[in-house]
Amino acid sequence: MDKGLLLVLSGPSGTGKGTVCEKLCRQHLNLCSSISVTSRSPRQGEKDGVHYYFLPEAQFKKLIEEDSLLEWARVYGNYYGTPLRQVEEKRSQGLDVILEIDTQGAKQIREHMKEAILIFLLPPSLEELWNRIKGRGTEEPEVMKERFSAAYGELKEIWYYDYVVFNNNVDDAVEKIRAIISAEKCRVERNKELLESYPRKGGKLDLSLD
Amino acid sequence: MDKGLLLVLSGPSGTGKGTVCEKLCRQHLNLCSSISVTSRSPRQGEKDGVHYYFLPEAQFKKLIEEDSLLEWARVYGNYYGTPLRQVEEKRSQGLDVILEIDTQGAKQIREHMKEAILIFLLPPSLEELWNRIKGRGTEEPEVMKERFSAAYGELKEIWYYDYVVFNNNVDDAVEKIRAIISAEKCRVERNKELLESYPRKGGKLDLSLD
Repeated sequence: MDKGLLLVLSGPSGTGKGTVCEKLCRQHLNLCSSISVTSRSPRQGEKDGVHYYFLPEAQFKKLIEEDSLLEWARVYGNYYGTPLRQVEEKRSQGLDVILEIDTQGAKQIREHMKEAILIFLLPPSLEELWNRIKGRGTEEPEVMKERFSAAYGELKEIWYYDYVVFNNNVDDAVEKIRAIISAEKCRVERNKELLESYPRKGGKLDLSLD
Repeated sequence: MDKGLLLVLSGPSGTGKGTVCEKLCRQHLNLCSSISVTSRSPRQGEKDGVHYYFLPEAQFKKLIEEDSLLEWARVYGNYYGTPLRQVEEKRSQGLDVILEIDTQGAKQIREHMKEAILIFLLPPSLEELWNRIKGRGTEEPEVMKERFSAAYGELKEIWYYDYVVFNNNVDDAVEKIRAIISAEKCRVERNKELLESYPRKGGKLDLSLD
């Protein structure tokens, strides 16, 4: 069985990564996401093994030391990371795995795994990004401006990525990422084994003419 | 307007390149093929500017000297080539261009144009390739074996290509090439201009909150 792909989806907050990811996984049966580990306490309604794997900080640090995380970060005093084994188990079952991760995490993943496919999701314009951040309407003006400024700053990281998908609408973005998955499965370097065995496939060749 | 892509489709004879190309161009309105130039005489029914551009050998050689051909080859004493200007005119109109060309020609094109997308079309197995060559039934056994042997020899050139598409059936192969086209349009390096102008898109940014 072919090993599944590893996709990383990044993009400023307000781009719609979550919605796109969810729709992709629902439509594309061979694709799944991965559950992150965190050292923070569960919030109300959050279940271990569903929203996150919740671990004590000491155990999280042990995972870092053991190099068992594909990427990790410390945010407001809490640790978050992607467990390597879980991702690799799914991929070896032939499943493609998509991770919704920020630009710093994406870089860590590329260093661990050259074959990862890095996709940057962008709103059609900065105005639209601002409208989307504003549209949430749940935050203070200053927080919104900070979010926007952080999003703007992330744009310079795009040159590190393989693909950019403009999220004009969710269906369109989903369609483009599906095309990227299909195309990547056709890349010569991803078919090395198959191609090397190709001339021998089916054993001895019968050049009979009847 | 974005410049169109340049796609090169190669593969052993009997793979179904022609059928796949034709169906692709019919379904994908933004895609067109290019008409080759040749120094050979028109066969019955062949029209200048439709099947080929027919040129006297001296004129063909002039095109080579002027570096006006994307690729060219001499086959059984006749010259065949792809005119650069025609391809570039179509691409600057935003059309994607697909060329059905052998492995030697594909290499010449990659040297001229780094951005070309090289696709190798393969039957699902060597047995199947032999069956397809045999199935034509129009040739002498020795010619068929020669064809097969040439096809087999071409396989080693595949490492030079970007993508391999297994032609299990025409619709499937067409679908995969369509995905490759969509995905390639999302590649970061193909969106350089757009991304560089992105922060300024729409002029001054209005961070108002109403």
